[in-house]
Amino acid sequence: MPVVSDEELHRRRHEIIEAARECFAEFGYEGATVRRLEQATGKSRGAIFHHFGDKESLFLEVARADAIRQADIVSSSGLVEVMRDILREPSRHKWLATRLEIASILRTDPTFRARWQEHQATLDEAVHRRLEENLAKDSMRTDVDVDVLQMFLETVMDGFITRFASGQDLERMQEVLDIAEDAVRRK
Amino acid sequence: MPVVSDEELHRRRHEIIEAARECFAEFGYEGATVRRLEQATGKSRGAIFHHFGDKESLFLEVARADAIRQADIVSSSGLVEVMRDILREPSRHKWLATRLEIASILRTDPTFRARWQEHQATLDEAVHRRLEENLAKDSMRTDVDVDVLQMFLETVMDGFITRFASGQDLERMQEVLDIAEDAVRRK
Repeated sequence: MPVVSDEELHRRRHEIIEAARECFAEFGYEGATVRRLEQATGKSRGAIFHHFGDKESLFLEVARADAIRQADIVSSSGLVEVMRDILREPSRHKWLATRLEIASILRTDPTFRARWQEHQATLDEAVHRRLEENLAKDSMRTDVDVDVLQMFLETVMDGFITRFASGQDLERMQEVLDIAEDAVRRK
Repeated sequence: MPVVSDEELHRRRHEIIEAARECFAEFGYEGATVRRLEQATGKSRGAIFHHFGDKESLFLEVARADAIRQADIVSSSGLVEVMRDILREPSRHKWLATRLEIASILRTDPTFRARWQEHQATLDEAVHRRLEENLAKDSMRTDVDVDVLQMFLETVMDGFITRFASGQDLERMQEVLDIAEDAVRRK
């Protein structure tokens, strides 16, 4: 068997993740069948599941890749900037529509919920760290617990994703985000 | 055929709506099959669809009943109070979990979207009227357009519903709602 370098392995995994994202965006989580994932990635099911185990794991890796990218944005500019990033590049984030399906699964499947939370941990920690930093820099309001401010921003993000995913008009969403950002700032 | 009074007709429809709400809450929109709706309402499909035409129409009537109740709360106390009401009586609102399914259908089915919006109109109008009243009473901020304030509150509500429907911890949600309420007030 030929030896595959770590770099080559990483490249192959990355390719599958990007193609799978498109497939989930187009067909949804349930609708992205193994056959469709094969077509989208140009790889056999054997090759795909050699890298990712099963469809759920592949989906969670797509989510983790996003969480890592978003955590970067959070670290430099905050959670609201993640939403502005989605508004700037909606086509790249089309797969967020699967979040509506996921929310149902999260409710009914504790194993999936535990795995999802683990894959989102990077983002959660980045948000928490960013808020703590802002607190230290005296740029955040201090009359409300930082955990509550985090929950507020995450609730806005969940609502944002619902509106984005159900195809609602987002024309004035930038102004909505201004309100949310302002609401956690020190006055 | 016996003559049925308007009152009796109203009572029968109301009974079906309440039983159907329970059924949608337990099984979801797709999962609430006609057979299950028969069991839940104790009526034959013939009797159910005599009153409501089809399952989609029945579902929309359940949604409309909620929208009317919520519009009442909005008129006296605002949209944030609707969310506080849900927090106080979560079991009554269990059926909101179907909203996650609905969001997918809204995106892909323009006919359903149009009907949904029509059934939600009572609530939308109540929210808009309430905000206009608050504006006239000088209790709202005026540096942001009232339509944007409405979109902000509705985005928070969508996020609230996602968190509620996916079974996330809502312990500190009251404090999150305080932030949202404060964000639209005149300082």
